[in-house]
Amino acid sequence: MVKGLMFVLLVLVAASSSFGKPENNSSAKKENKFPQTLSRGWGDELNWTQTYEEALFRAKSSNKPLMVIHHLEDCPHSQAMKQIFANNKEIQKMAGEDFILLNLVFETSDKHLAPDGQYVPRFIFVDPSLTVRADITGRYGNRLYAYEPADLDLLLSNMKKAKKLLKTEF
Amino acid sequence: MVKGLMFVLLVLVAASSSFGKPENNSSAKKENKFPQTLSRGWGDELNWTQTYEEALFRAKSSNKPLMVIHHLEDCPHSQAMKQIFANNKEIQKMAGEDFILLNLVFETSDKHLAPDGQYVPRFIFVDPSLTVRADITGRYGNRLYAYEPADLDLLLSNMKKAKKLLKTEF
Repeated sequence: MVKGLMFVLLVLVAASSSFGKPENNSSAKKENKFPQTLSRGWGDELNWTQTYEEALFRAKSSNKPLMVIHHLEDCPHSQAMKQIFANNKEIQKMAGEDFILLNLVFETSDKHLAPDGQYVPRFIFVDPSLTVRADITGRYGNRLYAYEPADLDLLLSNMKKAKKLLKTEF
Repeated sequence: MVKGLMFVLLVLVAASSSFGKPENNSSAKKENKFPQTLSRGWGDELNWTQTYEEALFRAKSSNKPLMVIHHLEDCPHSQAMKQIFANNKEIQKMAGEDFILLNLVFETSDKHLAPDGQYVPRFIFVDPSLTVRADITGRYGNRLYAYEPADLDLLLSNMKKAKKLLKTEF
């Protein structure tokens, strides 16, 4: 009857180490807003995928790069990046036109999405050939995929870099 | 630089076989509604998890069973079950109080979630001990985890069955 134990969950705990010095304001944010959205405030007009499986499928089938944003609601650095990201017209336009989008508050079990560890906020690009673009990094040596609001231009330039696909098909 | 090829995507294609005889009305539903919600109409007041990883973590940590609903927007049988599910007070109350909830339009790579194949709609329960309750089935021998609107009472009774945990902790 019972189907047996499922795979062991290795990397289930949400990344608790955030970039810099997080303030603990979780108690002030306990009220849930319904219905919850897939955008989580990163751009309500954009088309967000739900899961990594869906995102990879859509990246491959549309031949567009995937941008994965790991963040946490209780991390002020994530929140600051979200504000910048959601309110910047150039980012929103490029994200909407040229990228498959996924934002996650839980880590996946795929270690390729955490080339130098699990922390937030973390921006990882994946080529439509399904190769993680570990070469596209921010400016912090100890957290290669972290960005601060002041790094907006670098994020924009990295998005442009991700648009140059590794393998041009056809 | 480039981090190497990611894992091969075996089960990425969304289940195209739906329960019974699907009507193809995808073209009529092309307009996207923004912002997209995690509930997708299965209960806007309920707390839906985003990914299977998150759902498993929350089931384990809260010691509540997980209900996974596989469905498709273009499947009339999924839509009919959604209407029943979203409008039945007893189901909504029990779902909200006693279950961790996840609805998926993309299959995961975990074959335990498809004990007899990938089809929609499909209701699978997972015990907080992370065991898929393959013993909790509907009434169709060829699609053990499918339910029609007429099977509402059976679904309710199966939800009650899932609430009796396999291993009582403490």
